[in-house]
Amino acid sequence: MTDAVLGGDPYLIISSDCHAGLPTEEYRPYLESRFHRDFDEFLAGRDRRREEMTRLGIRNEDFADRWFRDNEEGLRGGWDTAQRMKELDGDGVAAEVVFPDADAVDSRTAAPFGVGLGLSGDQDPELGMAGAQAHNRWLADFVSAHPERHCGVALLPITGEVSEAVAEIHRAKESGLGALMIPAMWAGKEPYHDRRYDPVWAAAAECGMPVLTHSGAAPREEYGDHLGIFVSEVTWWPARPLWFLLWSGVFERHPGLRFGVAESGCWWLPNLLWFMDRLYLGAHGGKKLSPFQELKRPPHEYLDRQIFVCATNTKRRELAQRYEIGVDNILWGSDFPHPEGTWPDTRAWLRRTFHDIPVAETRRMLGLAAAEVFGFDVAKLAPLARRIGPTPADLGQPADQTAVEASWARSRETGRHWLTDHDFPVLGTGPGFPVPGVTR
Amino acid sequence: MTDAVLGGDPYLIISSDCHAGLPTEEYRPYLESRFHRDFDEFLAGRDRRREEMTRLGIRNEDFADRWFRDNEEGLRGGWDTAQRMKELDGDGVAAEVVFPDADAVDSRTAAPFGVGLGLSGDQDPELGMAGAQAHNRWLADFVSAHPERHCGVALLPITGEVSEAVAEIHRAKESGLGALMIPAMWAGKEPYHDRRYDPVWAAAAECGMPVLTHSGAAPREEYGDHLGIFVSEVTWWPARPLWFLLWSGVFERHPGLRFGVAESGCWWLPNLLWFMDRLYLGAHGGKKLSPFQELKRPPHEYLDRQIFVCATNTKRRELAQRYEIGVDNILWGSDFPHPEGTWPDTRAWLRRTFHDIPVAETRRMLGLAAAEVFGFDVAKLAPLARRIGPTPADLGQPADQTAVEASWARSRETGRHWLTDHDFPVLGTGPGFPVPGVTR
Repeated sequence: MTDAVLGGDPYLIISSDCHAGLPTEEYRPYLESRFHRDFDEFLAGRDRRREEMTRLGIRNEDFADRWFRDNEEGLRGGWDTAQRMKELDGDGVAAEVVFPDADAVDSRTAAPFGVGLGLSGDQDPELGMAGAQAHNRWLADFVSAHPERHCGVALLPITGEVSEAVAEIHRAKESGLGALMIPAMWAGKEPYHDRRYDPVWAAAAECGMPVLTHSGAAPREEYGDHLGIFVSEVTWWPARPLWFLLWSGVFERHPGLRFGVAESGCWWLPNLLWFMDRLYLGAHGGKKLSPFQELKRPPHEYLDRQIFVCATNTKRRELAQRYEIGVDNILWGSDFPHPEGTWPDTRAWLRRTFHDIPVAETRRMLGLAAAEVFGFDVAKLAPLARRIGPTPADLGQPADQTAVEASWARSRETGRHWLTDHDFPVLGTGPGFPVPGVTR
Repeated sequence: MTDAVLGGDPYLIISSDCHAGLPTEEYRPYLESRFHRDFDEFLAGRDRRREEMTRLGIRNEDFADRWFRDNEEGLRGGWDTAQRMKELDGDGVAAEVVFPDADAVDSRTAAPFGVGLGLSGDQDPELGMAGAQAHNRWLADFVSAHPERHCGVALLPITGEVSEAVAEIHRAKESGLGALMIPAMWAGKEPYHDRRYDPVWAAAAECGMPVLTHSGAAPREEYGDHLGIFVSEVTWWPARPLWFLLWSGVFERHPGLRFGVAESGCWWLPNLLWFMDRLYLGAHGGKKLSPFQELKRPPHEYLDRQIFVCATNTKRRELAQRYEIGVDNILWGSDFPHPEGTWPDTRAWLRRTFHDIPVAETRRMLGLAAAEVFGFDVAKLAPLARRIGPTPADLGQPADQTAVEASWARSRETGRHWLTDHDFPVLGTGPGFPVPGVTR
């Protein structure tokens, strides 16, 4: 690694999970005119939908009032480029991956026909694609002002006509977008192991556009008004396509495909990987089953080659498991401008979260891994990062990393214990740590 | 604790997950005669169903041939009492919790109308209850020969008429059964947060019968012939009712209810608990949501009071997490007579798995915790356990436990790190272990 990457230089920070979207009514010029009547109906249902969200507890009236009052100016960064640059700079974020739905409190910036974060396979195919294209057109404009700082994520409803989805991939690519968000749920349509989707995976690989799911869709009709149920499983549904793609051989047939799960944490990944690796490698529990012929290597090899997590506001418990997940598979994100993210206090969040994590690994998780996955130009971003990025010292990380590195040595050596002949995982630092002199 | 519990005495082993069932055609006398014609149809479909399982890879022809040839005598213990006692004794198992479906390879002992391990909410309500009652009647007979050694699990389809389910709970209790298995999936019927089920939970609590789900049901129509997908999520579906009951306040309204998840591992529980506790305790990510008014205490308190896992063939990775799960919430099981279990080599399995686990905790997980949950009479079982149970020395556990206890001290003290003010989990033993002199 070069001096620019190591040492005390400021971090190049790339948020792998940010959000942008127009106030919904402003999508009209981006929408084909033959859908304007449907759009009027969609707009007319906004109050009813907000009331329903409040009734279900997903929207807290008091919190919403305070949120919009306290953050009025910054929230305009959801669609206003100049304001957004100011907010990203303030957070020390040099570049970002841009998902839809800037407003996660009142849904004032929902993409037409609800094809944003709630994108689900049971969308009306025609309206779904129309709404997605409206957002994708606007987003291409939006990211064109500072193309080096954004990777725009095109909305891609794939459970409708596959040929249309493939055409939209190429159109999105040509327009300057860099990734694709598919519905987290197929909702009664063909599951993602189906060969009908092969042209989609092939086109994504050909265009070098990572395919992503993002948390949002869930079978809400099963939850009544019990919000805790929703939150307890909302991260499972976007993760689910991962094992549908993996076991049906999609990563084997499309080695150029990259697949990521966004804003669903990464705490679930080590257990899943352990479980799937053992199954493939012939664990006792699976001996009565037929072998897995669609795979040519164990699941962790596909993970390290083609899968990643946009882990957003990474938790300390998750960082403790990074040698099982794979340091390079964890892409931090600020979730700007959502209240569950770290904005506008990202610098303080980073210090609390990363102070005793090795600098070299922090650089990967905060930006360099995302640069590789999404194709950001690190050289172009370097001058900006030097100006706005926090330094390791700002994160409370000591200049002499010897003790910090030593504190993680046993965890790093053990790694994925089921592959390194260890019975038990080793997570977290050893005894005698935290290291004296490392501030929290 | 008494000397009988500690020291070098043999273990009292209770398997929290075993299986028994008649060869399917022999259920006829236990089935009301008005369902005999339906039963003939069900029997006629057996070959077709077995071929389908083979096609899907769930059944491996070569393995099946070998399994039945090598284990012909022991497998009769699936329904023959004398043979069963011999097999349990051979494994060192003093008592057991008895789920349906002795044959997990060819389904030759499937309960009528498929209400066994695959019990799902979309059963025909009338046939479902008829099949369940047939199995429950036979099972009551079966466990009556050695009542102190069995807790029979009654099949309870609850998505049909609630009043019938309540009546069946009382009938099962009076007949000598001790627990209740409900469908893991509601499959389009009312989810388990629905108040319609309150009489079921109340009756189960009143009768002191734990309510269980067991792995088996899953949305197989979504998997195609991709077996890996099925196995990757088959443990999630039976666990799912846990958070539906918890967040809808069922454990608050029915403090006498005990709920367990069987043969689904326990590796998923720490992350779920961490996630739910943090959500309830006001984590940043949930601040935009309404508070959780149906609960009066954090999720871990309900877990420790009312929830348990029949963790079956416990894995070393899971044991490493026992201070997060709660030692008393983990109930080991042999899964007799299923090939994915430990029979007929249970003694060797126990040695490989528990050799460096403290004896006092091993006693809880191998039997004493299950005795409390299912109401086994420990005093009555003690003479048998002394005769057949392996000793700590048989499991490779040293007589002097000082070093073993010390090796787990840091993990035990950290416990559920989010409640003990630790950032990171501490799983597994400290460095410098395994302890010299502790054999594997």
